[in-house]
Amino acid sequence: MVSPAQTPQPPYFAVIFTSVRTDSDNGYGETAKQMVELASKQPGFLGVESARQEIGITVSYWASQEAIAAWKEDITHLQAQGRAKEWYQTFRVRVCRVEREYGF
Amino acid sequence: MVSPAQTPQPPYFAVIFTSVRTDSDNGYGETAKQMVELASKQPGFLGVESARQEIGITVSYWASQEAIAAWKEDITHLQAQGRAKEWYQTFRVRVCRVEREYGF
Repeated sequence: MVSPAQTPQPPYFAVIFTSVRTDSDNGYGETAKQMVELASKQPGFLGVESARQEIGITVSYWASQEAIAAWKEDITHLQAQGRAKEWYQTFRVRVCRVEREYGF
Repeated sequence: MVSPAQTPQPPYFAVIFTSVRTDSDNGYGETAKQMVELASKQPGFLGVESARQEIGITVSYWASQEAIAAWKEDITHLQAQGRAKEWYQTFRVRVCRVEREYGF
C-alpha cells in the first residue's frame, strides 16, 4: 500500500508545491520523476507525497531550512526550475515549519 | 482555470491532510464536499487545495493556529472526524506555519 510519508517528530519542514500544468508534456513526466529521485538523495530529505487532478500538489519534507535551500540550488534542479513556464500555467511554492502531526 | 489558493503574505498557517481511502464510499464523497464548504465559512479560513490519486492530499490555509483549533472542534466536523476509520486506511495531519511563498 502506498502511504503517507513517514516523518519524524516535529519540528521539521515542508515544501508545498501546488501547480497547474500546461497541455504539453515536453519532457515533463521524465523530469518530474528524475527530480523526485534526486531530491530523495539530498541530505535532510525526509519524504515526499504527490497527487494530481485538476491541480497538482507535491509536498516534500525536510530536516531543516538549510536542506531546502541546498536542494533549491542543486544544479540539475535549477535546470528543471528554468523550464517551469513550459510545464506550468501557474505554481506556488510554500515553505513551512511543521509544528505538530497526528493520525493513524 | 482552477488555480492555487490565493493566500496573503506569510506568515500564515497550513494544515496538510494526507490520506489513503478505504474501498467503500459510505457517504464519503458527500461528507468531504460538505466539509470543504463548511471549512470555507470558518473565521480565518484562507483557502484550500486538493488532489487525489493513490494518495489524497488536501491543504487548507488559515490565518492563525486558533482558527485551526476552532475548526477542529466544530461539531459537524467532529462528527465527520469520528467516521475517519470508515473512510481512511491511514491518514496524517500536519499543522504548519508557512514562512515564505513564491511562484507565478
